[in-house]
Amino acid sequence: MTTRGPSLPRITDVAALAGVSASTASKALNDTGQLREETRQRVRRAAEQLGFTPDSRGRALSSGRSYTVGLITTDSSGRFSIPIMLGAEDTLSAGEMALVLCDTRDDPLRESHYLRSLVSRRVDGIIVTGRRTEPRAPVDVPIPVVYAFSPSTDPADLSVVMDDRGGAASAVRHLQSLGRRRIAHVTGPSTHHSALVRAASVVETAGDAMVGEPLHGEWSERWGRHAVDVLLRTEPGLDAITCGSDQIARGVCDRLRELGRAVPDDIAVTGYDNWSVMALASRPPLTTVDLELEELGRRTAQLLLEAIAGHPDPGLHQLPTRLVPRESTLGT
Amino acid sequence: MTTRGPSLPRITDVAALAGVSASTASKALNDTGQLREETRQRVRRAAEQLGFTPDSRGRALSSGRSYTVGLITTDSSGRFSIPIMLGAEDTLSAGEMALVLCDTRDDPLRESHYLRSLVSRRVDGIIVTGRRTEPRAPVDVPIPVVYAFSPSTDPADLSVVMDDRGGAASAVRHLQSLGRRRIAHVTGPSTHHSALVRAASVVETAGDAMVGEPLHGEWSERWGRHAVDVLLRTEPGLDAITCGSDQIARGVCDRLRELGRAVPDDIAVTGYDNWSVMALASRPPLTTVDLELEELGRRTAQLLLEAIAGHPDPGLHQLPTRLVPRESTLGT
Repeated sequence: MTTRGPSLPRITDVAALAGVSASTASKALNDTGQLREETRQRVRRAAEQLGFTPDSRGRALSSGRSYTVGLITTDSSGRFSIPIMLGAEDTLSAGEMALVLCDTRDDPLRESHYLRSLVSRRVDGIIVTGRRTEPRAPVDVPIPVVYAFSPSTDPADLSVVMDDRGGAASAVRHLQSLGRRRIAHVTGPSTHHSALVRAASVVETAGDAMVGEPLHGEWSERWGRHAVDVLLRTEPGLDAITCGSDQIARGVCDRLRELGRAVPDDIAVTGYDNWSVMALASRPPLTTVDLELEELGRRTAQLLLEAIAGHPDPGLHQLPTRLVPRESTLGT
Repeated sequence: MTTRGPSLPRITDVAALAGVSASTASKALNDTGQLREETRQRVRRAAEQLGFTPDSRGRALSSGRSYTVGLITTDSSGRFSIPIMLGAEDTLSAGEMALVLCDTRDDPLRESHYLRSLVSRRVDGIIVTGRRTEPRAPVDVPIPVVYAFSPSTDPADLSVVMDDRGGAASAVRHLQSLGRRRIAHVTGPSTHHSALVRAASVVETAGDAMVGEPLHGEWSERWGRHAVDVLLRTEPGLDAITCGSDQIARGVCDRLRELGRAVPDDIAVTGYDNWSVMALASRPPLTTVDLELEELGRRTAQLLLEAIAGHPDPGLHQLPTRLVPRESTLGT
């Protein structure tokens, strides 16, 4: 078993093995000072032999930076913030920055505790993310902050979000390009920002092709199934249903199949999210809108690194989504 | 916008405001030295007024600890490691420890890079987790390590896993307690450790009630649907199907419904994982086995904290799973 112990080699161990003073060993390993190349090599070999790794906290203290970034998330289920976090981690680790994870579980007290703790650890910056696209109150810390997915209510803050209007419009334009002329929209609660933005964009883009008002309900397969019964009763001539999420779209496809309506021949269906477990398992697989959340995470980290380096680019940054065409509109 | 700047107050600012020397201010805030209570209070008020937070890196250097733990994961999709990570983070943050996330994306080169980087940052310990239950090669670092979900191949290492044998057995015993006497098993690839362990436990627990051999295929709904066609042809008298995952079980339920077989009246079905998006959306909702992954993460973090404190408890720790009964066996 691997144990902590006296085994972690110190600079003095390296110096002893190389037959030099600790300060010479330190200069050799840090490439500073006036030393003969032979001495520098001997110290390096000794460090390698002992498995000595320099203490990066020394670098941190002398540079005034910790090479660490905090990530505050409210999203304990992780559907949206996990890919953002992984994208951010990818970019940060390439820049030798560590990412400290802080899960607030939607508790404001936990959030302020984490903020204090991150500031006390002298992190170089903070990423704040959440599970809803509603703007959120800014955090008050004296270091750079970038908001991802959930933007700050302060338009002067640096926020990175996806272009939800553009995403919803791309699904409608795709249906229209396939000749669909009677399009319905089924989506999540009218109290959710993302549902409202997508619905408004669908209505605007579809124009005369829109049948009825957007139908708001739960973000669930069950609601998708139920909405089909409502729609076929009120809008029997529809030829496409564009949905606010893949879960809803999957329920829509299941119910259409049960009622003997062919997807896409009778009615084409689009989802939203490109959540593979839903979009690919759906029968048929869903044409959907990919939120490109990993890219959103990478871009967030880049903008934070630039802000830390003294070049902030404040304001709202909107990133494009990507339409992914599959059998639910294209057929087989 | 929040910017980094000269605004982060320093101990000298606190000292100036309180009218004391920097070393007195430091003693007052660290509760050390001989000071009058009035002086201590004045310094504290000054610190509060300025929003001064002590630099925890100083505490870290003087104690020889960084109050930081690294988490190495290979699981970029996050299905299993995310709840483990959140559980670990919960326990660690209660102990004022920060969790640094390192996603290796299954790349051994990235893994060694991260290990070197974590050691160089002087983290106090490392959690290693993965997305398969196969034992993995141990990592070689001079600090405490705990393996979670994917145990170390070295039995002397500290590994925390769930009791998969017990989990699979609990599903079979539940079916037997409901009077089921002809039980089939449908699960994932025979090259996966988790599929093999669960299948062996089902066979052993079911005894004479087992019909046929375990059926191995993909971890997918599609395989669940296909397996139903196979089973109804070869084992027409079966009255229960216990599945190796919720995805498979959901496919089993869908296909049985399409064929007009009632779940659970004709055939009871159990899943495995308690992955809510599958288990609750299934028609009917699935009786399943919860892996208790957040608890696994919390226990992992506790064992790591004990090892860091010099009290390691090496060996394999198996945590219980939890049977969650729902309509797919109980009916409505």
